[in-house]
Amino acid sequence: MTPTILVTNDDGITSTGIRTLIDEVRHLGKVTVVAPDSPQSAKGHAITINQPLRLAKVDIFEHWGIEAYACSGTPVDCVKLAVDKVFHDKPDLCVSGINHGSNSAINVIYSGTVSAAMEAAIEGVPSIAFSLLNYSAQANMEPCRPYVREIVTSLLQNGDGRKMLLNVNIPALAPNEIKGIKICHQAQAFWNEEFYEREDPIGRKYYWLTGEFVNDKDDHDGDQTALEEGYVSVVPLQYDLTAYKEINYLQNLLKK
Amino acid sequence: MTPTILVTNDDGITSTGIRTLIDEVRHLGKVTVVAPDSPQSAKGHAITINQPLRLAKVDIFEHWGIEAYACSGTPVDCVKLAVDKVFHDKPDLCVSGINHGSNSAINVIYSGTVSAAMEAAIEGVPSIAFSLLNYSAQANMEPCRPYVREIVTSLLQNGDGRKMLLNVNIPALAPNEIKGIKICHQAQAFWNEEFYEREDPIGRKYYWLTGEFVNDKDDHDGDQTALEEGYVSVVPLQYDLTAYKEINYLQNLLKK
Repeated sequence: MTPTILVTNDDGITSTGIRTLIDEVRHLGKVTVVAPDSPQSAKGHAITINQPLRLAKVDIFEHWGIEAYACSGTPVDCVKLAVDKVFHDKPDLCVSGINHGSNSAINVIYSGTVSAAMEAAIEGVPSIAFSLLNYSAQANMEPCRPYVREIVTSLLQNGDGRKMLLNVNIPALAPNEIKGIKICHQAQAFWNEEFYEREDPIGRKYYWLTGEFVNDKDDHDGDQTALEEGYVSVVPLQYDLTAYKEINYLQNLLKK
Repeated sequence: MTPTILVTNDDGITSTGIRTLIDEVRHLGKVTVVAPDSPQSAKGHAITINQPLRLAKVDIFEHWGIEAYACSGTPVDCVKLAVDKVFHDKPDLCVSGINHGSNSAINVIYSGTVSAAMEAAIEGVPSIAFSLLNYSAQANMEPCRPYVREIVTSLLQNGDGRKMLLNVNIPALAPNEIKGIKICHQAQAFWNEEFYEREDPIGRKYYWLTGEFVNDKDDHDGDQTALEEGYVSVVPLQYDLTAYKEINYLQNLLKK
């Protein structure tokens, strides 16, 4: 049976990243695209509840025989609408990306790309988020292709059926400089943030987020270190956020 | 030393929930408010990166001697701006809410209230998200007060200094019907979602998210069951999303 594959992203349906991803996975299943009609980076797991959503059929992947829909909402809205109104059922796989920019370490929390994949996982669909460590809209996505193919194929053909949610980051290196795939945990790396403080043309103050990403050098098995060493990092994710190790402590702290 | 407390939310700075929260914690520390200038429900961990942010000093809590700022961004933006531009340092505690509506189970993923608290935790600030199980803007927040006081006091005065991130939900019951506090894990409860499909005045189709929340009846220690039984649920959260139990499986699946 040909697997059904939902492709989405957060950079928008016209980005180079999603086109590369579609071009790779179209050989591995029956692909349908539901992706944002405009850039939705850093939207995290936001959903649209206070206004209606639009879904427009577009023919930009027609030459590949692929149905595609541009959605007015967030990446998570795209996945919800795809399952309920396009597939009318769960696809066999969801792939999200290829994101223009890193989603390693704590970035999973802010990333629309990862959130889309997580939403699919919550709905019971195995799912993979792909990101390239290059924020440019003109990033060269070609080196990502063999890793997309290998990881998707492994999951579809060699897996034992368990429903994985994977966060894949690919270093922005030439193909011969990439050392292979490394399975990692989410690194202890954080943004050291600041806001620019400026004045607009009528003299009112505004702020703009900026920052520097800082890795914990001792976190050897984290995805950030793997990426810095030239590996493609793969982190299995889950959406139970409970800090189980704190339950006993809290029971003591809050008992009368 | 009087602890410094950042208060934020996702329903906006004029909501009843945040006013109730401020009124309780102002007796427990030096409070500063940085909250969205408009409703930001279901924004998850979204941040604003493609446009500038505004921060406006408002005097709506002046009668309590409390400094407050309305921010044009998301709940997570509020926390980031508060730390960098208002506190110029980390506050001793962040409290978020009281949300008008449940943030139990998988709702933690979509919730702006919880995401604000999580952002504070990521920045090293102990943090608590409070939510009442009543979506109405006119919800009676009064029964929440003793639980806010008890939980904040315990964390500030009786804790061993570890940096907790707590997700607190309060059932919409009369004070004498609430059975007490229960420490729980994030329940296996999900939205069974559908989209309304309608036509706008010029005949174009639109979709609007709706759904029904379904609890797993066998998940006895989950927060959803505790709430249904009349308890205030407290779930300790963490932001390492790694599914550690899948690392070995993946190492075998993806090895050459």
